[in-house]
Amino acid sequence: MSSPEPARLCLHTITTKTWAIEEAMDKYAAAGIGGITVWRQALAGRDVKKIGGQLRERGLEVVSLCRGGFFPARTESEREAAIEDNRLAIREAVGLGAPMIVLVCGAVPGQSLADSRTQIAEGIAAVLPLAEEHGIRLAIEPLHPMYADDRSAINTMASANAVCDLLDHPLVGIAADVYHIWWDPDLAAQIRLTGEKKRLFAFHLCDWMTPTTDLLNDRGLMGEGCIDLPGIRAMVEGAGFSGWNEVEIFSNRWWASDPDDFLARIVGAYGEHC
Amino acid sequence: MSSPEPARLCLHTITTKTWAIEEAMDKYAAAGIGGITVWRQALAGRDVKKIGGQLRERGLEVVSLCRGGFFPARTESEREAAIEDNRLAIREAVGLGAPMIVLVCGAVPGQSLADSRTQIAEGIAAVLPLAEEHGIRLAIEPLHPMYADDRSAINTMASANAVCDLLDHPLVGIAADVYHIWWDPDLAAQIRLTGEKKRLFAFHLCDWMTPTTDLLNDRGLMGEGCIDLPGIRAMVEGAGFSGWNEVEIFSNRWWASDPDDFLARIVGAYGEHC
Repeated sequence: MSSPEPARLCLHTITTKTWAIEEAMDKYAAAGIGGITVWRQALAGRDVKKIGGQLRERGLEVVSLCRGGFFPARTESEREAAIEDNRLAIREAVGLGAPMIVLVCGAVPGQSLADSRTQIAEGIAAVLPLAEEHGIRLAIEPLHPMYADDRSAINTMASANAVCDLLDHPLVGIAADVYHIWWDPDLAAQIRLTGEKKRLFAFHLCDWMTPTTDLLNDRGLMGEGCIDLPGIRAMVEGAGFSGWNEVEIFSNRWWASDPDDFLARIVGAYGEHC
Repeated sequence: MSSPEPARLCLHTITTKTWAIEEAMDKYAAAGIGGITVWRQALAGRDVKKIGGQLRERGLEVVSLCRGGFFPARTESEREAAIEDNRLAIREAVGLGAPMIVLVCGAVPGQSLADSRTQIAEGIAAVLPLAEEHGIRLAIEPLHPMYADDRSAINTMASANAVCDLLDHPLVGIAADVYHIWWDPDLAAQIRLTGEKKRLFAFHLCDWMTPTTDLLNDRGLMGEGCIDLPGIRAMVEGAGFSGWNEVEIFSNRWWASDPDDFLARIVGAYGEHC
């Protein structure tokens, strides 16, 4: 496996969350990064359209808006509010010029995962007309099973593919994040299937630390952990994916370090370990 | 779903690890608990046969010895040492009068999970003749995918069933622990299959906390978390399982509490939430 193309590196703003987006965009562009996935909190209080223009002026392609989802809830009014928030996310994506929204689908502790999956499919179906109107892709991100309690009832590529099959729409696909799926014995077959169905929309990179000391915010920089990143990239590219390699690292440890140094290490690790 | 039979409650010694096994056996018997699964560290420095006798004198049935496994390793000499340790565990089980050993199969960070699975199957095959000689059952425990880095490359019931299919031996089966498998969209089908193949050897209970603050030692007492315990017990019993309901809780929080109070709560929660 040869190194990944430098021009296909995209960075998630959450990865350098100590920078405001205005600073992040200058830093990313200076580091030669070509793509940016914008987390919604980075847009708080901003003119979204103006930010989109500034990103493009710096040569950054807006890869996606992160994140929509969280559809399941105990009450209908909460589910309706979630759907409204996803419609708002679609409008933000339009303003920003992002062609895609990543969906962290949601789960409710104690509610059956089967019920949550039904509510997820219903939620996506409810926002699809607006997504269609603007041509915004919706990428279901299967989350690691350790998040099945309150973050997502979609915990495998197979489960994400099942929702995609149900909705059967060219704008509904999958964001494959190595952190969530690397352990899956069915991974190669599911990635192949996802490619065949033309629904492999995004590919996210980071690493799994041993030991992992925090369920949410102890991801590793690529190469620090045990995930076979070139192996999974080979599967994804073998399935026809030619989109962005998106780096998305939540890490209390890295967030506490110097962000300029971290950015340089990300660019280096991308070339060396992916 | 009616409450589980009180007489089928078994407790893992690790759950009350602040008690030495001599104290634990008196406390368990006094609480009316009928079964005990002994962790090997509880036997350190003891005459295993004598402990087995003392357990039976108190009316405690020895359900299993916990744990063997950890077969994968980088070098052949390390793998051979792991096999020898598993043979020792079989001899300990014989001495104790335990009919079964629970296997936490092992994994090596950075070694492919496929390679680790091969080494696991080879390791179990290597110890099978001794297990056969003494009639000791070997129960593969699929571990939650969050332990795929360094604890087990067997992370789903399907994966455990695949190893069982490969070895195809009546002494090789599965220990189903709700903590590891509750999230699996394929759970009902896999439990049914495991029952049909007569290899559902053990059933372990605890709960999943939201939030979970430690990957290893933040399990919940039954009823504290989000797992549908009666639902999974119904699947297991529907698949023909009529063995022990084993409570196994690793919890820094509960370990720091009064163990007599914790034991009483376990008995109560077993009747109320399982």
